[in-house]
Amino acid sequence: MRAVVCHEQDLQVTELPDPVPGPGQVLLRVLRTGICGSDLHARVHSDATADMAAEVGYDHFMRSGSPVVLGHEFVGEVVSYGPRTRGRWKPGTRVVSMPLLETDDGLHMTGLSPHAPGGYAELMVVSEAVTFEVPDGVDVEHAATTEPLAVAWHAVRKGRVGRKDVAVVVGCGPIGLAVVLMLKAHGVRTVVASDYSPGRRALAERCGADVVVDPAVESPWDRFADDSRYLTTAPDLMQLGMSTMKRLRAVPFLPWPRVFQAAEKLGALPTGPVVFECVGVPGIIEQVVTAAPLQSRIVVVGVCMEPDTFRPSMAINKEVELRFAFCYDPAEFHTTLQMIAAGTVDPSPLLTGTVGLDEVADAFAWLADPEQHAKILVDPSR
Amino acid sequence: MRAVVCHEQDLQVTELPDPVPGPGQVLLRVLRTGICGSDLHARVHSDATADMAAEVGYDHFMRSGSPVVLGHEFVGEVVSYGPRTRGRWKPGTRVVSMPLLETDDGLHMTGLSPHAPGGYAELMVVSEAVTFEVPDGVDVEHAATTEPLAVAWHAVRKGRVGRKDVAVVVGCGPIGLAVVLMLKAHGVRTVVASDYSPGRRALAERCGADVVVDPAVESPWDRFADDSRYLTTAPDLMQLGMSTMKRLRAVPFLPWPRVFQAAEKLGALPTGPVVFECVGVPGIIEQVVTAAPLQSRIVVVGVCMEPDTFRPSMAINKEVELRFAFCYDPAEFHTTLQMIAAGTVDPSPLLTGTVGLDEVADAFAWLADPEQHAKILVDPSR
Ligand SMILES: [Zn+2]
Ligand SMILES: [Zn+2]
Repeated sequence: MRAVVCHEQDLQVTELPDPVPGPGQVLLRVLRTGICGSDLHARVHSDATADMAAEVGYDHFMRSGSPVVLGHEFVGEVVSYGPRTRGRWKPGTRVVSMPLLETDDGLHMTGLSPHAPGGYAELMVVSEAVTFEVPDGVDVEHAATTEPLAVAWHAVRKGRVGRKDVAVVVGCGPIGLAVVLMLKAHGVRTVVASDYSPGRRALAERCGADVVVDPAVESPWDRFADDSRYLTTAPDLMQLGMSTMKRLRAVPFLPWPRVFQAAEKLGALPTGPVVFECVGVPGIIEQVVTAAPLQSRIVVVGVCMEPDTFRPSMAINKEVELRFAFCYDPAEFHTTLQMIAAGTVDPSPLLTGTVGLDEVADAFAWLADPEQHAKILVDPSR
Repeated sequence: MRAVVCHEQDLQVTELPDPVPGPGQVLLRVLRTGICGSDLHARVHSDATADMAAEVGYDHFMRSGSPVVLGHEFVGEVVSYGPRTRGRWKPGTRVVSMPLLETDDGLHMTGLSPHAPGGYAELMVVSEAVTFEVPDGVDVEHAATTEPLAVAWHAVRKGRVGRKDVAVVVGCGPIGLAVVLMLKAHGVRTVVASDYSPGRRALAERCGADVVVDPAVESPWDRFADDSRYLTTAPDLMQLGMSTMKRLRAVPFLPWPRVFQAAEKLGALPTGPVVFECVGVPGIIEQVVTAAPLQSRIVVVGVCMEPDTFRPSMAINKEVELRFAFCYDPAEFHTTLQMIAAGTVDPSPLLTGTVGLDEVADAFAWLADPEQHAKILVDPSR
């Protein structure tokens, strides 16, 4: 089969032996595979990521010296089954799978480990247990976005965003755009999206963002300073405590212990917006913590591989939360696929191009320019 | 009246005019005032803190150049009332108050601003609206711990610790010890406390910590690696997803969408311990994030005034949360006082000494040694 092999930062179309499905595995013919920001990063910085992965116990993340087939956002059709499978779907059935492959020597990250070749190839194997049938009528390109949208869905769930909360998405790369899509699919009424790139801002609008901001011109945080439902300064917080107590104490014979118990249960402080940090460069956490209103809940989705510096004292003064989000669980992956199938979310604004295996190296270069592309799919049959 | 004035890092007993209660204010004779870590910090680094406070909108935090009476953890007895007060308590009634003073020119932080002199003095004024009567029978020294225990109570609530959760308290200074006390008062079954100082570890034990660890000898995190209820490595997480799916898929005809909806509602991932970071020095966040199990919820209570560096990628790989905790609200302050009154929490292990105004400067020096003291109270009548 033909596949794109990544080796020493080089992407080369190569003829490889057809994979043979092992126990519990299904052989797929790849229909589409999305090119992900992590692929771009892994191509250049895999050794640093591998060190980090080893530190958290996974010793088989790709390194620059060993050839790997990238691609963890894929849809394919069933070709055949290995031993000890249930053979649940007829050959030709379209499926997506979590990029998690069980092999003789353990579990591996598909498309990011030499032990589990990914979807930049004509054929690949997946674990039957984490594979899901694509419902009829779902566009194959939409199905290919299940994985990145599941990442966004997990982040939205992690942020516990209510429909009436205001969500702020900082950075409208593919992850930020996916978060905008899933926030709107979740019914969040006000989604503010911010990006320096006009191209990305246009996509954010198409993804459903209600307010789109160029941070070079206006701050996404201004609206909160003018809105009495948010605390933006320390005196706001002091004033809230004082005036609440004055109002309460104007009522004679209040049963204090019960009043305060109720207040504690309700959570006495107004909450800030839920912020999705989708940039992932050093300095962005400090920037968001400093600019966001008090009590903001900041979901960090952008992966910053370098050490980062911020002021904990500012985070404390603002009482913010930083919730770091990683991947998704099988339930979230399944729900995302069902949301795509039901039309609850329409990923088409994300999709800006399709290439064959021969053009993957070019596509990696194109993706460096935010004006041109968001998500490029690889179609190995082209 | 006599008061300890802090000016250019110097603490000096000084004769000051008696304060006169303004509108909404009550004059107190101070009975006890706790010396807080923030006082030690403010004495030396007030300008840096004032810059930070100004950045979040409070322009009147103390600076080294203007004389201030410190002390925000106080109990006193009512002497007299200013205009526009309700005169709710008879003179001689013992009260505690939130360190928040309303004056003609706005709200100020008592004991940390020249506009609101604190409790290192024979007399002080407080705002009636945020003042609470100390119930009969409560030891005056216990009442003096209301403020620091309210800080700890707020942190415990911020961490949403359940009784069956394991809580880890990193650092057993006065704040860490107060957190241990409030965790046990809240009924948390397993509280692990960690500190390099043998004196502080002994106090943590007296505060009720179930496991007390010297991090120089053993890691407070070891227990989680051996406990199957926690995820400590990335492969643990991968294995959980894979084996859950295998088990589910062994059941024929499962209604997938409903199963996954239920799984999403339950929250599919096991949660890590709730960690209380009570050290507040640069590097401690990185250390905790790197060592703690996956899915840990880290409540940052220790105030680190310097910029701090950590690896967001590690935080993402572990999916930790950092919740920064600041102060408390009036309901929490009131609840804390009631918990002390009811004997739900016994602050006596915290209390290691009492001094007069003349010894405050000495006490500041003693508190630098963790073996000698935790909380020293000032008794202005001594
Ligand atoms: Zn991806
Ligand atoms: Zn204090």
